[in-house]
Amino acid sequence: MASEKTLDDLFLETLKDIYYAEKQIVKALPRMAKAAHSPDLKAGFEKHTEETETHVERLEQVFDMLGKPARGKTCEAILGIIEEGKTIMEDFKNTAALDAGLAAAAQAVEHYEISRYGTLKTWAQQMGKSDMARLLDQTLSEEIATDKKLTQVAESNLNRMAA
Amino acid sequence: MASEKTLDDLFLETLKDIYYAEKQIVKALPRMAKAAHSPDLKAGFEKHTEETETHVERLEQVFDMLGKPARGKTCEAILGIIEEGKTIMEDFKNTAALDAGLAAAAQAVEHYEISRYGTLKTWAQQMGKSDMARLLDQTLSEEIATDKKLTQVAESNLNRMAA
Repeated sequence: MASEKTLDDLFLETLKDIYYAEKQIVKALPRMAKAAHSPDLKAGFEKHTEETETHVERLEQVFDMLGKPARGKTCEAILGIIEEGKTIMEDFKNTAALDAGLAAAAQAVEHYEISRYGTLKTWAQQMGKSDMARLLDQTLSEEIATDKKLTQVAESNLNRMAA
Repeated sequence: MASEKTLDDLFLETLKDIYYAEKQIVKALPRMAKAAHSPDLKAGFEKHTEETETHVERLEQVFDMLGKPARGKTCEAILGIIEEGKTIMEDFKNTAALDAGLAAAAQAVEHYEISRYGTLKTWAQQMGKSDMARLLDQTLSEEIATDKKLTQVAESNLNRMAA
C-alpha cells in the first residue's frame, strides 16, 4: 500500500495550484489594463501586475524553503475565472459598462487568491513553518488590499456613470 | 448598429452566472458532506446545502423582480473550482488530510460567491434597485459567515490532527 498522503502533500499541491494561477494572472492583467477606460482602473491593474510578479517570486521562495522545484499544476478554477473575464471584455467592448465588468472580473480573481493564500497560510502555521506563513501572509494582505481598492474604483466609476 | 449594452445587461449576465453556480453548488455540497470525516464539517456542509437552496430561491425572486425568466448561464469558474475539489476528494480519500482539503475547496467556492454577490449588490444599489440589493446582501452575509465558520472548523481539525 502506498504511504498515506499528509497535510504536507496537500500544502504542496495547493502551492502548485496557486503558482500556476499567479502565472496566468500575470498574463491576464496587462490585457485588462489595456482594455480599461478609467485611468484609475488602468493604473490599478498596472500596479497589481507588478505586485503579482512579486507574488510569483514569493511562491518560488516557498518552494525553495520546501526543497522542491517551483512547478505549477493546471488550475481549472483560475482558467475559468479568466475565461469569464475575457467574455465580459468581448461582450461589453466600447460600452460604458466595460469598466464595471473588468473590476468585477478582477475581484473574482482576487477572491480566488484570498481563499488559497488564507488556506496556505493557516496550514503553514499549523505545520510550524512560520517563515513560509509570513511570506504567504504578505501576499494575502496585498490581495485583500487590491480587492478593497477595486471595490472603491468600481463604486466611483459607477457613480460617475450615474451622474 | 446594435443598441449599446448597459450595466443592466451586465447585471443580468452576472445574475445568470451565479444562478448556474448556485445550482452546481447545491449538487456538490452533499457529496462533500458525505466525504467529510469530522462531524462538525459534515454538519456544516449539510446546513450550507439548505442555505444554498434558499440562495437559489432568492435569485429567482431577483429574476422575477426584473421581469426575466430565471435562467443560468454556464459558469466556467465554478465548474473549475468544483472540479479541483473533486480531485482533492479523490487524491486524499481516507487520509487525515481530507477534511483540510474539503474545507479549503469549500472556501474557494465561498469566495467566488462572495465576489459575485458583492458585485451584484453594489450594482443593484447604484441602479436604485434597493429591494434586489437587500436580497443579494442577505445571501452575501450568509456566504461570509460560512467562510468564517469553515476557517474555524479547519483550524480546530488541524489542531486535533497536530495533537
